[in-house]
Amino acid sequence: MSDEIGSLSVRAVRGSAIRDLLAVTEHPGVISLAGGLPSAELLPAERVARAAQAALRSPSALQYGLTTGVPALREVVHARESAALGRDAGAVVVTHGSQQALSLLAQALLDPGDAVVVEDPGYIGALQAFDTTRARVIGVPMDADGMRVDELRPLLERERVRIVHTVSNFHNPGGASLSEQRRRELALLADEFGFWIIKDDPYGALRFAGTTVPPVAAFSDRVLRLSSASKIVAPSLRVGWMHGDASVLALVERLKQGADLCGSSLTQAIAAELLADAAWLDTHVTGVRAVYAERALALHAALADAFGDRLRLTTPEGGMFLWGEFMDGTKTSTALGAAVDAGVAYVPGSAFAVQRDLDHALRLCFTTGSPDDLREAVRRLSTVL
Amino acid sequence: MSDEIGSLSVRAVRGSAIRDLLAVTEHPGVISLAGGLPSAELLPAERVARAAQAALRSPSALQYGLTTGVPALREVVHARESAALGRDAGAVVVTHGSQQALSLLAQALLDPGDAVVVEDPGYIGALQAFDTTRARVIGVPMDADGMRVDELRPLLERERVRIVHTVSNFHNPGGASLSEQRRRELALLADEFGFWIIKDDPYGALRFAGTTVPPVAAFSDRVLRLSSASKIVAPSLRVGWMHGDASVLALVERLKQGADLCGSSLTQAIAAELLADAAWLDTHVTGVRAVYAERALALHAALADAFGDRLRLTTPEGGMFLWGEFMDGTKTSTALGAAVDAGVAYVPGSAFAVQRDLDHALRLCFTTGSPDDLREAVRRLSTVL
Repeated sequence: MSDEIGSLSVRAVRGSAIRDLLAVTEHPGVISLAGGLPSAELLPAERVARAAQAALRSPSALQYGLTTGVPALREVVHARESAALGRDAGAVVVTHGSQQALSLLAQALLDPGDAVVVEDPGYIGALQAFDTTRARVIGVPMDADGMRVDELRPLLERERVRIVHTVSNFHNPGGASLSEQRRRELALLADEFGFWIIKDDPYGALRFAGTTVPPVAAFSDRVLRLSSASKIVAPSLRVGWMHGDASVLALVERLKQGADLCGSSLTQAIAAELLADAAWLDTHVTGVRAVYAERALALHAALADAFGDRLRLTTPEGGMFLWGEFMDGTKTSTALGAAVDAGVAYVPGSAFAVQRDLDHALRLCFTTGSPDDLREAVRRLSTVL
Repeated sequence: MSDEIGSLSVRAVRGSAIRDLLAVTEHPGVISLAGGLPSAELLPAERVARAAQAALRSPSALQYGLTTGVPALREVVHARESAALGRDAGAVVVTHGSQQALSLLAQALLDPGDAVVVEDPGYIGALQAFDTTRARVIGVPMDADGMRVDELRPLLERERVRIVHTVSNFHNPGGASLSEQRRRELALLADEFGFWIIKDDPYGALRFAGTTVPPVAAFSDRVLRLSSASKIVAPSLRVGWMHGDASVLALVERLKQGADLCGSSLTQAIAAELLADAAWLDTHVTGVRAVYAERALALHAALADAFGDRLRLTTPEGGMFLWGEFMDGTKTSTALGAAVDAGVAYVPGSAFAVQRDLDHALRLCFTTGSPDDLREAVRRLSTVL
C-alpha cells in the first residue's frame, strides 16, 4: 500500500472533489449545473418496468450469466455498432457501464509508468481508471474541433504512448467534438505509432445540432470503442459495451472474470429488449434530444447575454455539457463558494485539469434544469462571476 | 502487457478450465454436478418482480447512485451484519457481487509480489482476483475443520503475509467449515502478525445441519467480511457487500469509483426490499435450505454406498458443494472425459489446486439436481471412477 501513496493522493483529491460537488447539488434552493446526470423526468420508468416483467418470465434473468454479457444484448449491440461503423463490428463485451470498460482496458493494456494520453480538460472517470494502474497521464489541449491532434506527433516521437483516450463526441467536460479531419489524423497516428485509441462515446446518440461525423473506428483497426445505455435509456441498468480488437477483448473478458464474474442478467435482459425495440428507442431518444436541445440553447443564450465576449463558450451540438472559459482572468474555483451562496453551482475547470491551468474555466450541465431554471441560474451566476 | 504473461497464463488456464466446464454442463443428457449455480427453480422470480415494480415507482431507481450503494440497502445490510457480529458492524460498502469486493480489496491491499494466503484447494474467484494484482498466492491445506491454521504460524514467521483469505463456512470447493477453535487462533494470528483476514461468506445462511459457529470477526478487528445476496435471493441482482476497517473501506470506495462509478440503483433497491422483508426472506431461505439438505444428503448417501472407504467425503452441513478425495489413487482429471461420455460431469480437484496435488479429488455441486437425478449421477460415476 505504501507504494501507492502517489497515485492514491491524486485519486483522493479527485474523489473528494466529486463528493463535495455532489453534496453541493443537494443544498435546497441551489440550482445545480454541477451534476453530470441525465434528466430524471426523462428516464423511461414505465417502459423499463414492462421490460423487467417480461425478462422475469425467464429463470435465466435471475441466474449468473456469461462474463461477456447476455447473448441477446450482445446481438443487438453488435447490430447497432456494425451499422454505425459500416462494417462488421466483431466481438462485443458488455461491461458494468463504460467506466468498467475503461478500468478493464487500463488493467489490460497498461503497466505502471506507461504513458497514456487524454484530452485536457480530462474526463474524470478516465483519469481515475488510469491513475489506478499508476500510468503516467499526459494531457493534450482541446479547442473547438476537439483534441489538438497536431500536438500529438511530437509527443509520440518523444515517448512510447500505449493509449490515447478520447471522448470524441460532445466531450465531458470540454463540450466540443473531434472534427472528421482530426479523426483521420488520429487514426493514421495510431497505425504509425502502434498505440490503442480508446474512443469513449456515451453521448454520440445525443446530437441535436450540426452534422454527424464518422466514428474514429471507421479509419483504423486500433480503436477500442466504448458506449453505453446510460444516457439513452437509464444509468441504473449499468450496461456499457466495448468492441474492437479480438485479442484485447479476450484479455478484457478474463480480467472481468476476476473483477466481477459477470454483469446482471436482469438489467442486461431489460437493456436487450429496449435496444431491440427500435421504434420505441428512436422515439424516446428523439424526445430526449429535443428537450436537451431546448435546454442547451437556453443556457447558451443566457450565458452569451450575461457575459458577452468575457466568456468563450462551446457551441452546443449534443451531449450534456457546456464548457466556458473566461477571457478576463475570472477565477472559477475561488468564486464557487459565493456562487453556491447565491444559489447556483457549477464545476470549476480546475477539477478537470490534467496539466493545463483551467482555473478560468467551468463546466455547466444543461440536462436537469428547465429553460427558466437555467436562465435563473445564469442570472445568479452573473452576480458573482 | 508483456510483463503480465506470467500471471496471465495462470488466469488463462483457470479461465479456459471454467469455460470448458460450463460447456460440458450444456451437453444434453449430461447430469452436471460441475456447476456452481444456485437452483434455478428456487429463485424467487415473482417476489423479485413485485419488488422491481415497487422500486420503479421512484425515479432514483433508474438514476446513478452512490458509489457505496443505495442507502436503504446499506441500512438493512448493516442491521443484518451487526446482528451476526453482536456489535455495530460499522461502515458497509455494497459491491457488484462478492467477486468485486475481492477484486477491490486485492487492488487496495496488495502490491505485486506481496504474499497472500488462501485455502488449498482454493476458491477460483479469489485466485483470479489475487492473480490480477500479481501477488504471490500461497496455499494452506484444509481438513474437516477447515484451514489448517497450525500451518500458518511457520509461514507467517517466514514471510510478511498481507492477506489471509478464507471461505470459512461451507468452503467452495472444500465443503468444510472452519472450527470455532481455529477461528480464534486465526484471529489471534492476525492481531499478532498484522495481516488482514478476508472472510468470504456467501454460504453462511445456507446451514442445514450442525451448529452455527461465531464469525471470525467476533474475535478480531482485522477481518474484512464479505457476503452477498446471490445465494439467498438471486445472483443477477449482483449485490454483495463488505464491512470492516473504515480506512480500508474508504480506499475501496475510491477504487470502486474508478472501477465502475456505482452499482445498479435498480437491483440494489430490489435487494433492499427483499432483505428488509424479514418474514419473506426467512421463509424463502428456510425453503432453500430444506431442498439443499435433501439433495446434499441424497448425494452423500449415494456416494458412500457406491464408493465406500475409497472416497473420503466432507460431511454436508450447508452451502452448495461436497468435496471428495479418492484414497486409492483414482485420478479425477483423466477420468472426466469418460464420465461425460457416461452422462455425468464434475470438477476435478486439480482445477482448484494452489500448491497441493489434488488429482485424486473432485468437487460435486448438489444444488441443481433432484435426489433421483443425483442418485443416477452417482450410478454413472461409479461406472468410470
